[in-house]
Amino acid sequence: MTGVRRSRDVPALVEAARAGDPRAVARLITLVEDGDEVLPQLAAALAPHTGTAQVIGLTGAPGVGKSTTTNELVRAFRKAGKRVGVLAVDPSSPFTGGAILGDRVRMQDHATDPGVYIRSMSSRGHLGGLSAATPQAARVLEGAGCDPVVVETVGVGQAEVEIAGLADTTLVLLAPGMGDAIQAAKAGVLEIADIFVVNKADRDGADATYRDIQGMIGLGERAPGEWRPRVVRSVAARAEGIDDVVTAIDEHREWLERSSELRRRRERRAAAEVEALALGALRARMKDLRSGTELAALAAEVAQGRLDAHAAAAALLAQLDLA
Amino acid sequence: MTGVRRSRDVPALVEAARAGDPRAVARLITLVEDGDEVLPQLAAALAPHTGTAQVIGLTGAPGVGKSTTTNELVRAFRKAGKRVGVLAVDPSSPFTGGAILGDRVRMQDHATDPGVYIRSMSSRGHLGGLSAATPQAARVLEGAGCDPVVVETVGVGQAEVEIAGLADTTLVLLAPGMGDAIQAAKAGVLEIADIFVVNKADRDGADATYRDIQGMIGLGERAPGEWRPRVVRSVAARAEGIDDVVTAIDEHREWLERSSELRRRRERRAAAEVEALALGALRARMKDLRSGTELAALAAEVAQGRLDAHAAAAALLAQLDLA
Repeated sequence: MTGVRRSRDVPALVEAARAGDPRAVARLITLVEDGDEVLPQLAAALAPHTGTAQVIGLTGAPGVGKSTTTNELVRAFRKAGKRVGVLAVDPSSPFTGGAILGDRVRMQDHATDPGVYIRSMSSRGHLGGLSAATPQAARVLEGAGCDPVVVETVGVGQAEVEIAGLADTTLVLLAPGMGDAIQAAKAGVLEIADIFVVNKADRDGADATYRDIQGMIGLGERAPGEWRPRVVRSVAARAEGIDDVVTAIDEHREWLERSSELRRRRERRAAAEVEALALGALRARMKDLRSGTELAALAAEVAQGRLDAHAAAAALLAQLDLA
Repeated sequence: MTGVRRSRDVPALVEAARAGDPRAVARLITLVEDGDEVLPQLAAALAPHTGTAQVIGLTGAPGVGKSTTTNELVRAFRKAGKRVGVLAVDPSSPFTGGAILGDRVRMQDHATDPGVYIRSMSSRGHLGGLSAATPQAARVLEGAGCDPVVVETVGVGQAEVEIAGLADTTLVLLAPGMGDAIQAAKAGVLEIADIFVVNKADRDGADATYRDIQGMIGLGERAPGEWRPRVVRSVAARAEGIDDVVTAIDEHREWLERSSELRRRRERRAAAEVEALALGALRARMKDLRSGTELAALAAEVAQGRLDAHAAAAALLAQLDLA
């Protein structure tokens, strides 16, 4: 298997990943990150093995304890006999996983466990940020037999909303004394959170944060059968409250399956991914035309008044050759 | 001609505009601003009559005297027997021409002159800002017999660079005592300015601003035959120095025609316009597909693992029907 690290033999890599080879999984995610030309082939190879794993989004401001919580969740899922995949996405990191590696030390708990696959990803360079590469990487993990797949991301602006777009179940982590409840309301996380985790619940102000969130949830009207976000307290650093978080996750999954919401979320996620891929392909082809002679030739005609700009644009679009 | 204001009869409107009817010109620019479906027809009708007028871009920070300078330039061009068009673009204005109207009072000098057409435009709502609607509006003015066409815009960020993209000759206005020389260097206007106008040259610090700009220009290496930006002093409010500005504009036009730069700039401008139109058309068609059932149906297939996202994206693109 020494050739795995550079292999672009998609069927062989997918087979090896499904058999549990972590190097094959790593190689496939690298192909996804690089936007390799084999991606359509990879997507086709993975499709039959995907679509059922629970994708758990986990987000929150820096310092609320996301990595520690993820680590403890992984431990709990492993105890339940599940194979777990973790994608740690840092949209602000200029290096792949760079800013996260420090926090990842604790993840070494699972470094020798073949039932856990952890990967840091940067969203840098991907048009559409999270929306383009992360769903495909999550699909690689699912294809490799991981269920659940945990996608952890720093809660900064757009990433929070994007994570809800790609997750079945979205956890928003808060910590007391950071004005988080108000921040949460502002950022619109009230709409995206299925489960709120008040971490560091042994600290001053934890009760106030808990009450604030409960109060804000109570304000929203809900139709019968609609999910009412859970609020759970934890001290992840001491592994306290993690069982409650897992219970809430399981309850949410049951609700998703009972209602038609699981199908709805997955279709919405697929739609976003398809659209991002289509737009990316259009941009790439447009760029080829721009650097090629086609646009230059049309522009020369327009500049001389022999062709109008609209007719030239139509001619350019006809060159995109999308069929 | 009472029907002109609502007419969408493009050949009749173009004919009336070419005959000098200001209402027909106004109507055509409104059609451009609205992104009306007759635009391809309009572009085709104008193409034979365009491609030779000098487009003068005039930009600078708020308060440097752009409107006053434009007003005096118009007066000078009129004295030389030229028909003049002015587009005042304010990218930040939420209303068409709203923020500019106050400054426009002086323009009333030319309100009854049939040889001058002045129009305020907002770039709001146009994808690509200046780049989408302004070139088409400039073409309407040129088609109506205006030469030169002056495009005046507030020098805020992107607009400055965009104006250089659509102008044959770019004027950057500065005023003393605003730290403008350093600002100019920062904003990259050194690269876009063909002519610097140090307006309000009777104020303290005007000499320092003049020397700063001259110094910065001197730093750049130039190949033989390359244009060296002129630096001109004016007091537009007293109509002083305007002749020097006009001389610099004429010299630049001569240089443009002598060198191959005029053709290069016009082709670059046409290329940007064609590309903006093509991208706009793609976005519009993509939006139709998104709101239609096509994407939803594909997404459902992907969510169920019956189709992969790449294949779905290819199917979506095939629906764009660009040919």
